[in-house]
Amino acid sequence: MHATLIHGDHDIRFEEVPDPVLMMDDDAIVRVVAACVCGSDLWPYRGVTHANGRIGHEFVGIVESVGTAVAKVKVGDFVIAPFYVCDMTCVNCRNGFSTSCLQGSWWGGDDRRGHPSDGGQGELIRVPLADGTLAVVPGPVDDALIPHLLTLSDVMGTGHHAAVSAGVQPGDTVVVVGDGAVGLCAVLAASRLGASRVVAMSRHESRQAVAREFGATDIVEERGEDGIRRIREMFDGVGAQRVLECVGTEEAMTQATRSARPGGQVGYVGVPHLGPEVKLQPLFSRNVGIRGGVAPVRNYVAELLPEVLDGRLRPGAVFDLELPLSEVAAAYAAMDERRAIKVLLRP
Amino acid sequence: MHATLIHGDHDIRFEEVPDPVLMMDDDAIVRVVAACVCGSDLWPYRGVTHANGRIGHEFVGIVESVGTAVAKVKVGDFVIAPFYVCDMTCVNCRNGFSTSCLQGSWWGGDDRRGHPSDGGQGELIRVPLADGTLAVVPGPVDDALIPHLLTLSDVMGTGHHAAVSAGVQPGDTVVVVGDGAVGLCAVLAASRLGASRVVAMSRHESRQAVAREFGATDIVEERGEDGIRRIREMFDGVGAQRVLECVGTEEAMTQATRSARPGGQVGYVGVPHLGPEVKLQPLFSRNVGIRGGVAPVRNYVAELLPEVLDGRLRPGAVFDLELPLSEVAAAYAAMDERRAIKVLLRP
Repeated sequence: MHATLIHGDHDIRFEEVPDPVLMMDDDAIVRVVAACVCGSDLWPYRGVTHANGRIGHEFVGIVESVGTAVAKVKVGDFVIAPFYVCDMTCVNCRNGFSTSCLQGSWWGGDDRRGHPSDGGQGELIRVPLADGTLAVVPGPVDDALIPHLLTLSDVMGTGHHAAVSAGVQPGDTVVVVGDGAVGLCAVLAASRLGASRVVAMSRHESRQAVAREFGATDIVEERGEDGIRRIREMFDGVGAQRVLECVGTEEAMTQATRSARPGGQVGYVGVPHLGPEVKLQPLFSRNVGIRGGVAPVRNYVAELLPEVLDGRLRPGAVFDLELPLSEVAAAYAAMDERRAIKVLLRP
Repeated sequence: MHATLIHGDHDIRFEEVPDPVLMMDDDAIVRVVAACVCGSDLWPYRGVTHANGRIGHEFVGIVESVGTAVAKVKVGDFVIAPFYVCDMTCVNCRNGFSTSCLQGSWWGGDDRRGHPSDGGQGELIRVPLADGTLAVVPGPVDDALIPHLLTLSDVMGTGHHAAVSAGVQPGDTVVVVGDGAVGLCAVLAASRLGASRVVAMSRHESRQAVAREFGATDIVEERGEDGIRRIREMFDGVGAQRVLECVGTEEAMTQATRSARPGGQVGYVGVPHLGPEVKLQPLFSRNVGIRGGVAPVRNYVAELLPEVLDGRLRPGAVFDLELPLSEVAAAYAAMDERRAIKVLLRP
């Protein structure tokens, strides 16, 4: 079979690799139906962080085989894999934070027993802890639903996490920093939770259009001090109640915390890859809270999947380019050069 | 009249100063019935920060005179002053965050028109924005209630803010970092909000006793790595749901964030005088939120005062020493040397 490997800065290859085999009793093998490239995949692609080997962590597919200890997931099931492995039975999973699963691991890394894990951008994938990791979609699954379902493996759940972490309630005023797929899904999530105003900060016309489709009531193109001033002016001169930070840079976090009104709350899901620190004094003096992290998207499937299935929730518009999985290198390039918001890949 | 001035490191003097006069239409003059020393007064006392002039910011008293624009507060009223001046009408006050009042100012600093303000440790005090700043206590006021009422000017409201910021709900597990008056009030606040377990981190017997009186179910004497390990062991191996940080040092914040379980929340009210920064990655990876700041204690009077008046809420036990106001220098020394938790001063 073939899978995607990263060999270095801007070096993505679709290569022949051995078919995966069941290694633990709780494993399943999944044949990928659709996968995609994540904004966070661009960090190693750009050489900001370093990675070598299998890559990708978002996919949906059909179960091909299961280990002897797998009880819930059946051969032939259509499944959504979150961007991590989790058992859904440990204390952290039960508390709603499966990204802190005590047995958890990451695609492309080592599983809990030290076996190397597959990456998500491949044809076949070995899934550890299959009964926890995989969410079964009741079939049959209409092909048109696939992009929407695929967002539940990361970006829609992550946008939802930003909104939940910021405490978005009906009637709240919300600002979203970041117009990537996660930022756009955060707009959709805030709107879904009943926000009265949702401001998308974006200067890209195509992304603004998706933001409006997802429920943005306002677009702000300014950034930095100008952006903060605009947001404060829009909301009583003091700022918004909730700000969703979906980038992960220090600039974006500063934009977010300073756009929140005194007593406001920032929900942040942008991976702080560059290790930003947050100064407490400016947060303390204005009582601005920050909350967020690696989104426990597996926990959110129960809430979001029914709405995707009945057509109320349609986050799939974040995919504005579809390519064969074999052209995965072109998908990375399109996202790197911001020619695409997010690329869907089909084997 | 006499008031307290700080002249430098460890140099507190009770000096004769001119009687205050009404300077703005919304001013009132209050004759102090009781004042006290705050843990944050010890920062300049110890020379960690620098201050020169009037000091003190917690008092209760009787209104002696009011300006022509004062409508709610009457001569003869018994009033509680929060540790700051606020109008209670601006957007931030109405949003519940009067410490961000658009017309606000601080005792001992300049008021909104640039007049110097009195400090709280004096015999008479000019109070700007009297109708907003002062909370009237329906009289007559029993002398035994005075210590309890005085805590509403800062420490009880601040402890409550730590608990509210951490999101304490009935049944939650709570850890309190810091055994000063605010930390002890945070124990009381968490207990009042229905926490099922409240752990006080303290190694001082007298403070442990107050913590237990205030509802602490457990005491942990260990600090640093040992303290974090103890807390995690106590709560499913992963930590507590809510942690209240009531110190303000980097060590205390680290203790707090690492004692929270994945998905947990830190409420912090310790003034970050030393300008600590918080690294995002450890918070992000465990989904630990931080929220808090300068406590809007004036907003909390409406909720807490009725319980003080009917005897259900008795935070006054944080005062374990009472001195004449004229011996204010001895009060600072007692707190600096940790011979007293908090000193009540009567003119």
